[in-house]
Amino acid sequence: MITLYHHWLSPASRLVRVLLTEKRMEFALRLEKEWERRPEFLTLNPAGEVPVILSTEGKPYSGVRAISEYLEETIPEPKLIPGNAEERYQVRNLVDWFHTKFGSEVTRHLVSEKLLKRFLGIGEPDSEALRCAAHNLKNHLRYIEFLTIENNYLAGGQFTMADAAAAAHITVIDYFGDIRWQDWPGAKAWYSRVKGRRSIQPLLSDRVSGLTPPSHYADIDF
Amino acid sequence: MITLYHHWLSPASRLVRVLLTEKRMEFALRLEKEWERRPEFLTLNPAGEVPVILSTEGKPYSGVRAISEYLEETIPEPKLIPGNAEERYQVRNLVDWFHTKFGSEVTRHLVSEKLLKRFLGIGEPDSEALRCAAHNLKNHLRYIEFLTIENNYLAGGQFTMADAAAAAHITVIDYFGDIRWQDWPGAKAWYSRVKGRRSIQPLLSDRVSGLTPPSHYADIDF
Repeated sequence: MITLYHHWLSPASRLVRVLLTEKRMEFALRLEKEWERRPEFLTLNPAGEVPVILSTEGKPYSGVRAISEYLEETIPEPKLIPGNAEERYQVRNLVDWFHTKFGSEVTRHLVSEKLLKRFLGIGEPDSEALRCAAHNLKNHLRYIEFLTIENNYLAGGQFTMADAAAAAHITVIDYFGDIRWQDWPGAKAWYSRVKGRRSIQPLLSDRVSGLTPPSHYADIDF
Repeated sequence: MITLYHHWLSPASRLVRVLLTEKRMEFALRLEKEWERRPEFLTLNPAGEVPVILSTEGKPYSGVRAISEYLEETIPEPKLIPGNAEERYQVRNLVDWFHTKFGSEVTRHLVSEKLLKRFLGIGEPDSEALRCAAHNLKNHLRYIEFLTIENNYLAGGQFTMADAAAAAHITVIDYFGDIRWQDWPGAKAWYSRVKGRRSIQPLLSDRVSGLTPPSHYADIDF
């Protein structure tokens, strides 16, 4: 069986978990605290970052985008980057958006201020960084509202890698209870559809020790 | 003709320039100072970042990875992500490496300390950040040496998107004269091969006003 080295705080790891489940692959999860820089892990990925997939034959795969495209090429069904070149561009553009834009403007701030500082014991959250993330988050939720006006999913009528990438981030930040879902009915309806998927459900049962998610966290109807 | 909105300091823009030239597409270059946040540019890419391609029909494409895959799909020859799924994984893994690892550990530090601070008039370069970038750069040059022990190019015997992504970064930082090429004969031989390409040559004639590159900058034999 293949092994996925992952960490709960890593949206990129969550994305690969979702892709593997969507593609109906069996895999073992292995928690990797990348900041410990274990020599054995560095031999699998010199970049020292999760996610890493270790194949049954012992071959490592790293880099979330390289892994995502590799899975799409080697396990073509169900397609997660479907359609013609224009439609596939649209999916990848949204995946990029969540990996880079959403990641740097929202997730990174919230995870580092609300969790990493607490774990590492290096002081209180920076309220300016949190305000900034909250402001940015509203723009991103507005974008999700816009994208789902006419479609059930971000890139059209079907679940794609774009939804998986968005869910990889939103399942992390919704854990903190920072999203006022009642203000975003379209995004909420989209997220409810996404939460109902077999591939997303496992993400919602993760728990960080010492930090309880809001009561709606794992509910599909919230 | 298509238009590429780019900036000299953006390795992602340089990568798209190289891909378009390798694919023998004609394009007009348009300098975009993304920090000015021009409303017209934001309508092309809400993320407000270069590169953006505007098609002849006026359709915008953004996100360097989404653009790269789109060009590879719609203009298949010459292939820049060639081979079977394993080989294609390897190319994308290296592209990822340069975009994220090399970008955050080397290019971002050097560009922001050596150029942006000067342009924006916000003080002297931070010597700690420069030391850190110089240290990281050595590790990356060692990695290029390792990759080219047995092959002429980073992912094997032929020029691929991996070489284009690496050159997109290295042509920026070599401008500052920070690479002691005599210490890295393998990387130097690789860079000499890459500099000789028709797609890389135009990058080497860019000039930043007020800052002269080292005399070897545009030379293939250096």
